Amino acid sequence: MSLLVVGSVALDSIETPFGSVTDTLGGSATFFSAAASLYCGVQLVGVVGSDFPLRDLAFLEKRGVDLTGLEQSEGESFRWSGVYSFDLNSRETLETRLGVFADFEPKIPDTFRDAEWIFLGNIDPVLQLDVLEQVRRPRFVACDTMNFWIEGKRPDLLRLLKRVDLLMVNDSEARELSGDHNLLRAARWIQAHGPQMVVVKKGEHGAILFTKEFVFFAPGYPLEEVFDPTGAGDAFAGGFVGYLARVGSSEPVHLRRAMIYGSAMGSFAVEKFGIGRLIELSPREVHDRVCQFQELTAFEQPVLEEVHA
Amino acid sequence: MSLLVVGSVALDSIETPFGSVTDTLGGSATFFSAAASLYCGVQLVGVVGSDFPLRDLAFLEKRGVDLTGLEQSEGESFRWSGVYSFDLNSRETLETRLGVFADFEPKIPDTFRDAEWIFLGNIDPVLQLDVLEQVRRPRFVACDTMNFWIEGKRPDLLRLLKRVDLLMVNDSEARELSGDHNLLRAARWIQAHGPQMVVVKKGEHGAILFTKEFVFFAPGYPLEEVFDPTGAGDAFAGGFVGYLARVGSSEPVHLRRAMIYGSAMGSFAVEKFGIGRLIELSPREVHDRVCQFQELTAFEQPVLEEVHA
Repeated sequence: MSLLVVGSVALDSIETPFGSVTDTLGGSATFFSAAASLYCGVQLVGVVGSDFPLRDLAFLEKRGVDLTGLEQSEGESFRWSGVYSFDLNSRETLETRLGVFADFEPKIPDTFRDAEWIFLGNIDPVLQLDVLEQVRRPRFVACDTMNFWIEGKRPDLLRLLKRVDLLMVNDSEARELSGDHNLLRAARWIQAHGPQMVVVKKGEHGAILFTKEFVFFAPGYPLEEVFDPTGAGDAFAGGFVGYLARVGSSEPVHLRRAMIYGSAMGSFAVEKFGIGRLIELSPREVHDRVCQFQELTAFEQPVLEEVHA
Repeated sequence: MSLLVVGSVALDSIETPFGSVTDTLGGSATFFSAAASLYCGVQLVGVVGSDFPLRDLAFLEKRGVDLTGLEQSEGESFRWSGVYSFDLNSRETLETRLGVFADFEPKIPDTFRDAEWIFLGNIDPVLQLDVLEQVRRPRFVACDTMNFWIEGKRPDLLRLLKRVDLLMVNDSEARELSGDHNLLRAARWIQAHGPQMVVVKKGEHGAILFTKEFVFFAPGYPLEEVFDPTGAGDAFAGGFVGYLARVGSSEPVHLRRAMIYGSAMGSFAVEKFGIGRLIELSPREVHDRVCQFQELTAFEQPVLEEVHA
């Protein structure tokens, strides 16, 4: 149940209506690993600059994240800064400084090449394809992407899609990729271009899994306080793939539960700034919230005779 | 299981990306009754003008809707016209002509005054209060409202809230009424001002029921084609209250199912222009879709030992 993740390890500066933080630990591979490592060993591949506070990653190593594949290069680390609107539903990127990430070429250590479960974080699809060339026989490949690649690297992205089992994107990305506003049709379009499965994330409105056989909907968990949405999508992915790798199955019963583990993980991620809440999180807390999701959506089978004279 | 609805009976002119219709049957009481009458007798109170094509309501009478309380007054019927955006997620009102609805004073026929289940459609809260003065001993009162009354008749609306069991509003209305952007806190605010229960409708993103004891989430049903969102919220209300009246219970098990009946009914309403789809709808079709909602959200109870070493 080895799980390989390739993605960004970054320093985020975030401003929300509740405060701000500077150069806090961020990046897709970081959030993903923090979530997934509650369930299985994680092998992380990424790059940071010579200015990166490596001690901030100690909690990941303690949880069994193998950082052998994390390069440290001469130069500045990837930095992102953004400001959220008063309702946290939109954000403006103030600055993206790629630093050493601009020349990132994922090198998969030999000890990682037998990974069975793979998550390709949101990076250039050319690099995502390159990762797939370096691994031996993956059992389940999930990947993320974004509008930047959909617009700028469409042919490469379409080549990548033929080689992944699951694409996990947000609703606007699914719409842009497929050219169809309707999410159900957008998902069917994506499935016709490669992935057997599509997860469409809708932020506070939940997430939908489309497979060939069924559709499953996971709501957003109703929270009284949302502090910082940064990383919620990658935490979702970490909970989702981490759970599947843990149980060693992508059967429907586990895919459905994985959606709830993902949604639960996303709901924890937003409760504190940056990665703070995931650092202190325990499998039991996640389990309890997954149970609460069942309370939130379960209803007894309807009885036709009850409503039909 | 008598169910009384008071609201508008109107003629709508609608333009969507898929076409347009003029002077088609609309109004909150109409959509509500069309949905609820699949489950129980409905007593409708409203007003139409001398120009109203009463034959269009024949299908309601056939389904057991008692139109004794529908006044026909000298003058023009209530007309609404609007145009939807390409993605159907927003609409612009082109014209609202109140006609005889401007002087509407609901008169509850004596045969309706023992109604146990009541839905107060979106009209002036002063009139909604007046309806409650005219009924004898209602068992369950649900009501709708809108931003226009929240802004213009707030004191009356707050008086009304103290006398209803359930407020059913959309997310922007819940936010405006409570002054709180967070939906969970907004619902708690509303509950503190009267209603034991609040349903917040989020259109395609589903609906949430807040009670003192639990929160329940019903997703929007994923549809490949949405033709016309007009009336979906009132169809939801009709399915919700109609189901409760049918089973004669507002116990948690029934409230949860009622949310799904409501969501199913809303999903049918948008499949054709105006009220077209509800006219031809059968209880069996709704039952089948309610079963599909269970497929959409059900997952097996998580097992802590499975994820916790």
